[in-house]
Amino acid sequence: MQKARIGVTGLAVMGRNLARNLARHGHPVAVHNRTATRTKALVDQFGAEGTFLPAETPEQFVSSLERPRRLVIMVKAGGPTDAVINEFAPLLEPGDMIVDGGNANFADTRRRESALRERGLHFVGTGISGGEEGALHGPSIMPGGSAESYEALGPLLEDISAKVDGTPCCTHVGPDGAGHFVKMVHNGIEYADMQLIAESYDLLRHAAGLAPAEIAEVFRTWNTGRLESYLIEITAEVLAHTDASTGKPFVDVVLDQAEQKGTGRWTVQTALDLGVPVGGIAEAVFARSVSGHAALREASRNLPGPSRTGDAGSGFADAVERALYASKIVAYAQGFHQIQAGSAEYGWNIDLGAMATIWRGGCIIRARFLDRIRAAYEADPETPTLLTDAHFTEALGEAQDAWREVVSVAARLGIPAPGFATALSYYDSLRADRLPAALTQGQRDYFGAHTYRRVDREGSFHTLWGADRTEVTG
Amino acid sequence: MQKARIGVTGLAVMGRNLARNLARHGHPVAVHNRTATRTKALVDQFGAEGTFLPAETPEQFVSSLERPRRLVIMVKAGGPTDAVINEFAPLLEPGDMIVDGGNANFADTRRRESALRERGLHFVGTGISGGEEGALHGPSIMPGGSAESYEALGPLLEDISAKVDGTPCCTHVGPDGAGHFVKMVHNGIEYADMQLIAESYDLLRHAAGLAPAEIAEVFRTWNTGRLESYLIEITAEVLAHTDASTGKPFVDVVLDQAEQKGTGRWTVQTALDLGVPVGGIAEAVFARSVSGHAALREASRNLPGPSRTGDAGSGFADAVERALYASKIVAYAQGFHQIQAGSAEYGWNIDLGAMATIWRGGCIIRARFLDRIRAAYEADPETPTLLTDAHFTEALGEAQDAWREVVSVAARLGIPAPGFATALSYYDSLRADRLPAALTQGQRDYFGAHTYRRVDREGSFHTLWGADRTEVTG
Repeated sequence: MQKARIGVTGLAVMGRNLARNLARHGHPVAVHNRTATRTKALVDQFGAEGTFLPAETPEQFVSSLERPRRLVIMVKAGGPTDAVINEFAPLLEPGDMIVDGGNANFADTRRRESALRERGLHFVGTGISGGEEGALHGPSIMPGGSAESYEALGPLLEDISAKVDGTPCCTHVGPDGAGHFVKMVHNGIEYADMQLIAESYDLLRHAAGLAPAEIAEVFRTWNTGRLESYLIEITAEVLAHTDASTGKPFVDVVLDQAEQKGTGRWTVQTALDLGVPVGGIAEAVFARSVSGHAALREASRNLPGPSRTGDAGSGFADAVERALYASKIVAYAQGFHQIQAGSAEYGWNIDLGAMATIWRGGCIIRARFLDRIRAAYEADPETPTLLTDAHFTEALGEAQDAWREVVSVAARLGIPAPGFATALSYYDSLRADRLPAALTQGQRDYFGAHTYRRVDREGSFHTLWGADRTEVTG
Repeated sequence: MQKARIGVTGLAVMGRNLARNLARHGHPVAVHNRTATRTKALVDQFGAEGTFLPAETPEQFVSSLERPRRLVIMVKAGGPTDAVINEFAPLLEPGDMIVDGGNANFADTRRRESALRERGLHFVGTGISGGEEGALHGPSIMPGGSAESYEALGPLLEDISAKVDGTPCCTHVGPDGAGHFVKMVHNGIEYADMQLIAESYDLLRHAAGLAPAEIAEVFRTWNTGRLESYLIEITAEVLAHTDASTGKPFVDVVLDQAEQKGTGRWTVQTALDLGVPVGGIAEAVFARSVSGHAALREASRNLPGPSRTGDAGSGFADAVERALYASKIVAYAQGFHQIQAGSAEYGWNIDLGAMATIWRGGCIIRARFLDRIRAAYEADPETPTLLTDAHFTEALGEAQDAWREVVSVAARLGIPAPGFATALSYYDSLRADRLPAALTQGQRDYFGAHTYRRVDREGSFHTLWGADRTEVTG
């Protein structure tokens, strides 16, 4: 009886498309779903695309896989993932691999990897980005887990991943939770990027008075330059779209309350644990939650302030492009800083340039820009920040006046631009020879005797604020 | 034999001062420490201040307390707190109370309260703010736990707390983790407030070219007006202080790397879980972590940008005062929003005005301003935001031009002002009749079929972006 090279259980749209992608690439794939109708529907509808081995029971599914078994689970993160693992793990043998292709929290992945490793099984937490279309036509794939498991899985995953210049958008990220961690930060960066695009649109709309269709043209032009990316491309598409039922611009009939599914929030929470400043991602998450607080917004609608209308001239779109590019550099630099810090904290030894490489295609943030990041890490793999890469420094220098002007205009006209503003603040904080954090330390020593360090000698000091204000060693 | 009304175990500086405060108020207090030398030292040094009952063993300590026993533990949060609870709980009887006066995470407090409740014991997670001096002379006290426990503990705690206009800075916050939750948000607000003060100083120093001693005078003047507060007061003291060993302004010899102990971070992480935007606190936490990344700052020092020097005129200090007041209103509004959301999530039924009331004295953020917040909640206990209170709305209106000008100046001169900027963005986001979140929802529908809602009818919709772009129900 023919065995399958790999199996997929959980045949909702992501799992189904991943299975089809495998089959289309000539890999016999076992398919299984809790309710068998989905399995049957897949084979009925797409059976001609390749070799599918449908299984009705977990036992049948597992026994249809060649050894070592490669079992991909595509179910909801959290409880459902644990349930499926608990169902299948007892049926597997040492050396077999469970690939979790869902959006798991990396801490859960670390726990599961550790538990399954004790039973001789490989657990491969794998980030998959690109949505339904990506899963079918070539996603960006971020597998964690053991190097041994990657030897058996890598060729298959690379085969079905997106390719850029012939290079697969898939590589071994690192041990245990590394893959899901990197996927999480990818999503956090996506939040920041989308927020910057939203602010750019809002500024062009209100400060320059352009209509959505005109702004769509601006984004189309941008998409032929250094900002070329999937997100800029679809922004133009969304802005150019007219709502059929009203004849209005589509963007004007959509309720302006953004939703979120949690990975942006996780990214910020994890960054806080790691001590990495990710203002760009945090402001993006907060902007979405502000938008969703309908009662709060309704109550606040008549607060005093300017009317958000300006008459910015024809050069304003160029200024926004520069501000956007500069802020985007900062947001990505913060995200890569977080990966670097996570890698150090958990001993993952992640190749940062390789992450930029596998994000060039397949995923939501795919962009020409990522090749610049790849090049920056190729030039200096140990750099503490992307900002000091020659290309980025030059772009930041050239963007200076426009960036500052755009933040100013937004403040003056009352157009919220938290993403642009936080990026600029971060940039200026890093540049500063002295920060007012010295005052903060002085205050902390005053009210809590928390001590401070000095610029001119080693050690820890405390001033006797309540007494004669002499300094003692702390 | 005389029994103690209350006992304190853990006699480091906070515990020792709390015990002295109790004794000074005429309450016989049992004292215990893991190493007995500290207990002896306390009685030797301060025995004349009241009635101390020193205990060498846990058994002796517990038996010296009148029933129901009130046992205050003042040890490090985390493992040490669990260890002490596990040591003492078996010695207690139903109805006895364990008060945790440390800086515990409210989730731990919820867990402990639940476990001890099953054993018939009251666990009273209690926020105590005011540092060493506050513990001795009158802190702000935020006890959680059962209403029954507050009946037995409240009079004692109110007695030793700070008083403002004769009102104790202590009240029953709510069940289980409510006290530690509110203390956590208090600390988060403290971070935001300190960051805004730091930015004000930095702007006066660089944009207006004032020396630290001159800025101290500015803060002294501010402290006679609506900004009157402990933090403004000590800012003036720190800025006026001259370093004895160099003759330089003290603030210039302190290393500009701010440290943190975790409650600011927790506040932001919890706010993210609750879906509450707290940009002011987040930017404050990030500003501290940026300042501490020495290698990153060193590498970034020569990034292009303006020199941070300006020649802002004599009116600039007034503009900064207005920007500071407006931003402070926003930061506090965000913090109170978080308490409101936490209270709803966990069923605590917290009286927001009462929190403002007990923060008016004893704690680090004590300020005249808090009486305004108390009044705002008195006028409208259900208000979704403090911003719409008549007094605050008027102040925000009057601050508009200055606030926007200060954010602009900071952006143009390259002086980081993330706290001012995020406050302004939040304010403008709430005011906006339409937010670009509509574009975000359109993008999410485009790449992930996440659906959107419409402004003109109920339901959830999806546009077939990859096909003929008709709209279907989602």
